[in-house]
Amino acid sequence: MTIRNEMLQLAREAKEAGRVMANLSSAVKNDLLVRMAAALEGGSEQLIAANEEDLAAARERDLAPAMIDRLVLDEERIKAMADGLREVAALPDPVGEITGMWRRPNGIQVGRMRIPLGVIGIVYESRPNVTADAAGLCLKSGNAVILRGGSESIHSNTAIGALLKEVLRKMRLPAAALQVVATTDRAAVLELLKLEEEIDLIIPRGGEGLIRFVSENSRIPVIKHYKGVCHAFVDASADFDMAEKICLNAKAQRPGVCNALETLLIHKDIAETFVPRIVAALRQAGVEVRGCEVTRAFAPDVTPAGESDWPAEYLDLILAVRVVDDLEEAAEHINRYGSLHTETIITRDYANAQRFIREINSSVVMVNASTRFSDGNQLGLGAEIGISTTKLHSFGPMGLEDLTTRKFIVLGDGQIRP
Amino acid sequence: MTIRNEMLQLAREAKEAGRVMANLSSAVKNDLLVRMAAALEGGSEQLIAANEEDLAAARERDLAPAMIDRLVLDEERIKAMADGLREVAALPDPVGEITGMWRRPNGIQVGRMRIPLGVIGIVYESRPNVTADAAGLCLKSGNAVILRGGSESIHSNTAIGALLKEVLRKMRLPAAALQVVATTDRAAVLELLKLEEEIDLIIPRGGEGLIRFVSENSRIPVIKHYKGVCHAFVDASADFDMAEKICLNAKAQRPGVCNALETLLIHKDIAETFVPRIVAALRQAGVEVRGCEVTRAFAPDVTPAGESDWPAEYLDLILAVRVVDDLEEAAEHINRYGSLHTETIITRDYANAQRFIREINSSVVMVNASTRFSDGNQLGLGAEIGISTTKLHSFGPMGLEDLTTRKFIVLGDGQIRP
Repeated sequence: MTIRNEMLQLAREAKEAGRVMANLSSAVKNDLLVRMAAALEGGSEQLIAANEEDLAAARERDLAPAMIDRLVLDEERIKAMADGLREVAALPDPVGEITGMWRRPNGIQVGRMRIPLGVIGIVYESRPNVTADAAGLCLKSGNAVILRGGSESIHSNTAIGALLKEVLRKMRLPAAALQVVATTDRAAVLELLKLEEEIDLIIPRGGEGLIRFVSENSRIPVIKHYKGVCHAFVDASADFDMAEKICLNAKAQRPGVCNALETLLIHKDIAETFVPRIVAALRQAGVEVRGCEVTRAFAPDVTPAGESDWPAEYLDLILAVRVVDDLEEAAEHINRYGSLHTETIITRDYANAQRFIREINSSVVMVNASTRFSDGNQLGLGAEIGISTTKLHSFGPMGLEDLTTRKFIVLGDGQIRP
Repeated sequence: MTIRNEMLQLAREAKEAGRVMANLSSAVKNDLLVRMAAALEGGSEQLIAANEEDLAAARERDLAPAMIDRLVLDEERIKAMADGLREVAALPDPVGEITGMWRRPNGIQVGRMRIPLGVIGIVYESRPNVTADAAGLCLKSGNAVILRGGSESIHSNTAIGALLKEVLRKMRLPAAALQVVATTDRAAVLELLKLEEEIDLIIPRGGEGLIRFVSENSRIPVIKHYKGVCHAFVDASADFDMAEKICLNAKAQRPGVCNALETLLIHKDIAETFVPRIVAALRQAGVEVRGCEVTRAFAPDVTPAGESDWPAEYLDLILAVRVVDDLEEAAEHINRYGSLHTETIITRDYANAQRFIREINSSVVMVNASTRFSDGNQLGLGAEIGISTTKLHSFGPMGLEDLTTRKFIVLGDGQIRP
């Protein structure tokens, strides 16, 4: 069978299976996930053996130690995957929720009911835990899922998939609701991306290269997460202790992630006192500061920031710092250089807090909190399937609800249109 | 300037203008729309003169009389456009609505707030009233809009656009919030469809050819409305009077629209009595019936339906009729041949009504009501920007709310991530 036909068949089976999944009760879906968790733990020997094959190949290809570490599956990580599935099982089921219902003058009742999207394709790199995490979220929300991981973790992914599919079979549910693409041929991805009749949504998870490849080649809607260039604006009225604490946390607590702070904007009225203080604190935390001219006037030994620093996503212990005239200039800077991910203002001024919340249209906008809270779990969505920095369908961290859509329901008693 | 640069500049100006529109109060936006309505009425002579140019060109090109009729702007249709704007002005503003707010254990408050999408591109054919209707909906929801109508109505569209832009200027609002593409070169559309940095959503309105052209060439998310193959299922327990009334209304009240009935499914237990009755009633209403073998057993002079009749969108006084074993077979038929638009069940059985509502995942699912209610106005959304038959972002009739997205807002008092 050609790759084209193979992918088409796999997607068609998923679509059929999705119809069954869409109508399962929450109790059955929760039971499924809990049993899947047990299957992962019970099959840990198999998983570790399969993972060994991936690790051997990675060592042969001389992958960086950090990359190899991300691939590793051990008892602890298998337990974490299983716990993840149990957590998703415990979340409320979005399917069937009626988000509003009203009566029209002619007596028909009109409402909107959440339903699964249908078939979701996940294209990801590296970490094998995504296989279980994504499967759990997609199945709990009543969808079928097609998983296509990277070649580095193909054996681990296939082994995880096999254990999970076995649970579907044992429960007499359609095993095709969970499809793990077994080929590492990139042509398979290209074929999947054409199947707009069968697949409803594609979520790429990985580096910018993968995301661009998927979105440029897809005929199916893609939810993209480009980079996170997050900003903090320290307003003239800010509490300096709070500002320092938030900036340090946002930058240094875990600098390699997309919700870490990348640019700090400081109101000019406090620059003289706050710039030296925050620069010293950042230095002590091991952060390299790159500053605008005004910043350097108050902290002369700071590296000069160039035009390439403002849009930079360092993902490292580096921070760009700029002094701005006011909230307006801060907003202009964010509009110009930001990535619509997360921005925070530190202020004691009610009107400025309100303005910032209203006027900054990034996916997460905060007052007096660390950008590191920009995450599905931290915001209270439960587990997260991804973060969208484009506005259609979902914007920001995505949970179970974002894997659904809404249909209209109409209850009449014989009404016709005059 | 090349078309590419011209479109890029126009879209960039729209994006800038969109930032201003996003922060206008509802009062200002409503005032804008009401003044635009007055401007259309006040400029009716200009509009009719511009429209004459389109009509002359249409007659020269020997367009069908029905096509020419759709192009006509007269005092009455101008008044209808103006009234449409006033109606949109009177609708609630979705921007700024907080759709939920909760407190996390660490004390941060998390909410979701509706914001405009940014820049919306509308690519449409024929009717010049779309220019005013789409402008009203996009501006009211705080977006900038780029309108690209068909060449048949280029003079009318440009004249309408000029009047509306003049109102923006008089109110000292950015005129670039409303861009009417003045060239009829198709290359302009292709260029617009590439501007994913500037345009957030493309809505094509017109025939299937236009919609396919746009969605195949767009790098920007597209909300598609393919065809409407709507079904009614008359259950064994149906009230025959109600079933007849609904079927006639759904098929014959206005057969040329996407929410008209195209296939009637009848439960086998009532076929013997209901088939002859409904066939006679449909005939009397001038409807040609094409039936399955069982239908023809009870109404022998019905034309035989072929495999091509089940997926057909006739948009005409023709109806396909099939007798099915039960709700299950009806659902299978709808899944196989339907277009996810609108389906209705006529029944007195509570459990079957519940099952139909739950299990049929088309964009609008009804009990005991005519499919003709599947329309933004009829369902209570106010004016409608389109109907989506794909599931991402919106599914079914789309109103003002569908031209927005939601950002997360986080209110803290110094929280950092441990």
